[in-house]
Amino acid sequence: MAHIKLEEGLPGIRGLLAFRPETAGPLSALADVLLHADNTLSRADRELIAAYVSALNGCTYCRESHAAIAACHLGGDEAAVAAVIRDPERAGVTPKLKALLGIAARVQQDGRRVGEADVARARAEGATDVEIHDTVLIAAAFCLFNRYVDGLATWTPRDPAGYRERAAYVAGQGYAGVLRTVAGAPGADRA
Amino acid sequence: MAHIKLEEGLPGIRGLLAFRPETAGPLSALADVLLHADNTLSRADRELIAAYVSALNGCTYCRESHAAIAACHLGGDEAAVAAVIRDPERAGVTPKLKALLGIAARVQQDGRRVGEADVARARAEGATDVEIHDTVLIAAAFCLFNRYVDGLATWTPRDPAGYRERAAYVAGQGYAGVLRTVAGAPGADRA
Repeated sequence: MAHIKLEEGLPGIRGLLAFRPETAGPLSALADVLLHADNTLSRADRELIAAYVSALNGCTYCRESHAAIAACHLGGDEAAVAAVIRDPERAGVTPKLKALLGIAARVQQDGRRVGEADVARARAEGATDVEIHDTVLIAAAFCLFNRYVDGLATWTPRDPAGYRERAAYVAGQGYAGVLRTVAGAPGADRA
Repeated sequence: MAHIKLEEGLPGIRGLLAFRPETAGPLSALADVLLHADNTLSRADRELIAAYVSALNGCTYCRESHAAIAACHLGGDEAAVAAVIRDPERAGVTPKLKALLGIAARVQQDGRRVGEADVARARAEGATDVEIHDTVLIAAAFCLFNRYVDGLATWTPRDPAGYRERAAYVAGQGYAGVLRTVAGAPGADRA
């Protein structure tokens, strides 16, 4: 049971967005800019960073949600997503994304751990300043989202079907669209 | 030197806000709702939570910035602020704020560490659901801000006078106002 009284049937962050619309606005806008808006990093790559950091933070709801959205952007390839979360360096992704995931892992531990060598590696693989910036901010943002979701002990559904159904909706609509339908959208009753 | 090319003379998060206006908007709006907007928790209490979490995360820029803003809201009592950051349980603050700072410290470590006993203690001291929610989200947000500022190796000024001058401005204008004047405001050249 959550630490505060939330609307029943809304899992993870969705119950929190419904509880406090004043903070839901900026949080959804931030997620939309970072994960869904046009960017030289693909939506799949950005969702992989989100899912990976969530896994490192042990946040099951966010890991499952963003892994499912990443898979949507990769034509449903859930195995590819799982491989990245398990071990980015051995996964079948570009050297550039591996370098960015390396930076994200440092940020997850402590911002001060990001070293010049980490940044130089990403740059050598073609990462731009904005891409490095966005990687750091996505990783930092999931250090917020993961703590928000787990710190208030929100509901984590177990059924993968609910995450898949919801992911298809979010992958298409983005996060600003999601906010308008916190309750009334596919998977609202499940995930 | 920062990991990416930022405008010179803008310390900490301010260089980052100027670098990426698309994310600056939601981040500033979030800070404004959490720390400056009307709330049953005082601005001083919320800034103390921000400064305390920043200290736990070892982020000097954020700790100094929010300690200075908290002191502004407490009539300039910097010693009181320092005492809270050093050891909340022994500081001269209300039992309710001590309980909320305890929750914030759990969130800083890992959201999953917030236990029912932590929440029950806050509730016994009079904390409402919204206050518990906001405490968790402020602590989570500074796990973002601290990593963002340090993960990109931004400039941390050493002169306390710059933080004080800037704090007086932010304490009055709030964080949405700050965004409009990332560069052109008191202390822009120092802190």
